[in-house]
Amino acid sequence: MSAEIIDGKQIATEIRSKLAEEIISLSSHGVPGLAVVLIGNNPASEVYVRMKKKACSDIGVNSYEYSFGEDYGEENLLKLIDELNNDSKINGILVQLPLPRGYDEKKVIEAISPLKDVDGFHPENLGRIVIGDRDCFQPCTPYGCQIMIKRTVKNLKGKHVVIVGRSNIVGKPLANMLVQKNDMANCIVTVCHSASEDISKFTLQADILVAAAGSPGLIKADMVKPGAVVIDVGTNRVDDPENPGKCKLVGDVDFEAVKEVAAAISPVPGGVGPMTITMLLENTVKAFRLHNDI
Amino acid sequence: MSAEIIDGKQIATEIRSKLAEEIISLSSHGVPGLAVVLIGNNPASEVYVRMKKKACSDIGVNSYEYSFGEDYGEENLLKLIDELNNDSKINGILVQLPLPRGYDEKKVIEAISPLKDVDGFHPENLGRIVIGDRDCFQPCTPYGCQIMIKRTVKNLKGKHVVIVGRSNIVGKPLANMLVQKNDMANCIVTVCHSASEDISKFTLQADILVAAAGSPGLIKADMVKPGAVVIDVGTNRVDDPENPGKCKLVGDVDFEAVKEVAAAISPVPGGVGPMTITMLLENTVKAFRLHNDI
Repeated sequence: MSAEIIDGKQIATEIRSKLAEEIISLSSHGVPGLAVVLIGNNPASEVYVRMKKKACSDIGVNSYEYSFGEDYGEENLLKLIDELNNDSKINGILVQLPLPRGYDEKKVIEAISPLKDVDGFHPENLGRIVIGDRDCFQPCTPYGCQIMIKRTVKNLKGKHVVIVGRSNIVGKPLANMLVQKNDMANCIVTVCHSASEDISKFTLQADILVAAAGSPGLIKADMVKPGAVVIDVGTNRVDDPENPGKCKLVGDVDFEAVKEVAAAISPVPGGVGPMTITMLLENTVKAFRLHNDI
Repeated sequence: MSAEIIDGKQIATEIRSKLAEEIISLSSHGVPGLAVVLIGNNPASEVYVRMKKKACSDIGVNSYEYSFGEDYGEENLLKLIDELNNDSKINGILVQLPLPRGYDEKKVIEAISPLKDVDGFHPENLGRIVIGDRDCFQPCTPYGCQIMIKRTVKNLKGKHVVIVGRSNIVGKPLANMLVQKNDMANCIVTVCHSASEDISKFTLQADILVAAAGSPGLIKADMVKPGAVVIDVGTNRVDDPENPGKCKLVGDVDFEAVKEVAAAISPVPGGVGPMTITMLLENTVKAFRLHNDI
């Protein structure tokens, strides 16, 4: 029996239409505004920025694009962020990463006011996640994973989540989110990674397995416990054998084989991807409420 | 064969004497200063404050005590913290917890400048721990545990650490510290807790088991893998059967039985306890270096 497919696109569509309604209901207070800052001309970054702007426009968030060439300079960027921090029409600030060489990403991220850090990358927001303070912005990708997990497994209490990968934007924040004592979490959490000689010892125990290592096809069917829920966060571009010279997007999970073992699995594409941008929108609306005290 | 006893007192003494030498070598820059703030008259808090002041004095740190009655008020406390944040003779600020009723602990902790937060409780410091930024203050108890673990197990790479308990001051920060990619860490980390029906399923897998649940005698011999390293963070006051009417301090581990199974074990008292205050001293000296740019 093949696994249930966790349709990230469908969940994202539902959440986005609720957000659109919410924005209408709040319109007497104004319109949420997101500043999208793009430095340089990385083609992937340009695609992401376009997708984010479109997602904003679809649900009624104003997006303000600030695009500059690579030579804009860190000093100017920090000045811009300072202006955006103090601009009342801007509720969220997103600086598209990676930044070109010569920019200190850490310094740039920390310049964003934690109250406008809708990407959830500022240390203050991450620290609030550690202590279980929900009055903060959760990073978009792990937040999207959490929503998908909660929709699939109603009662998370005591479930063993195994996360493969310890990145700052997925593995580590997600571990902190899922260990908290609340009904979106309350899990036993293991984080395993490349320092282990044999990660299958851990993955085989998972009630919920999150693959976030950035390694195409890392998770094989014999590494998954029958009946597990599998969330694939991998977004790896590999050569497409069916279209010589072209790339295709694949996850960290051997989807075709694992779906015969798992109870539920998220695909790539169409899984975590659409959820990430959706949580950015959700955070922007949250910031708007926060700034307007509603 | 009985386990090696991890002598926290001995390790603490070594570190403290190194710190004392370091302070002498830095004396041309002045003397590190720690502000210790005590509100109300909780007897345990009074003991802790006395111990911390003595530890400072022993190694040559200036401590400045600010003691006030319960009726001092949150507003005055916040004003005091603001003054201490701006006082150049103060490198570290410690507000003894718990605060009496009527004080918002979260607000008070967050009022302390992250650059003087030698307890490591400020969300910004915790967030830096998540992302592996070592340019921050690590909370004292988990930091002490990490040192004890590293002294006992030289190569931590890929070791499976199981932490029982998810408190904000021990379990969660320690998990974040031990999962990082550096030679004080690089472990596979599991956090388990009361939401699990059977924690022994996890504890039995641990190469390194950290008991930080605050539950006397929770960890029995049959829950420990033979040859494991066991760190007992519990500090529970229970009735002393040998001295009717008196209390004694016990850990979360059934020490007598577990020491016959484990390869190494830290006792209570004399284990993590002396390390906690030592790491407070270490953080204060680190703050002094930071503020003097040395």
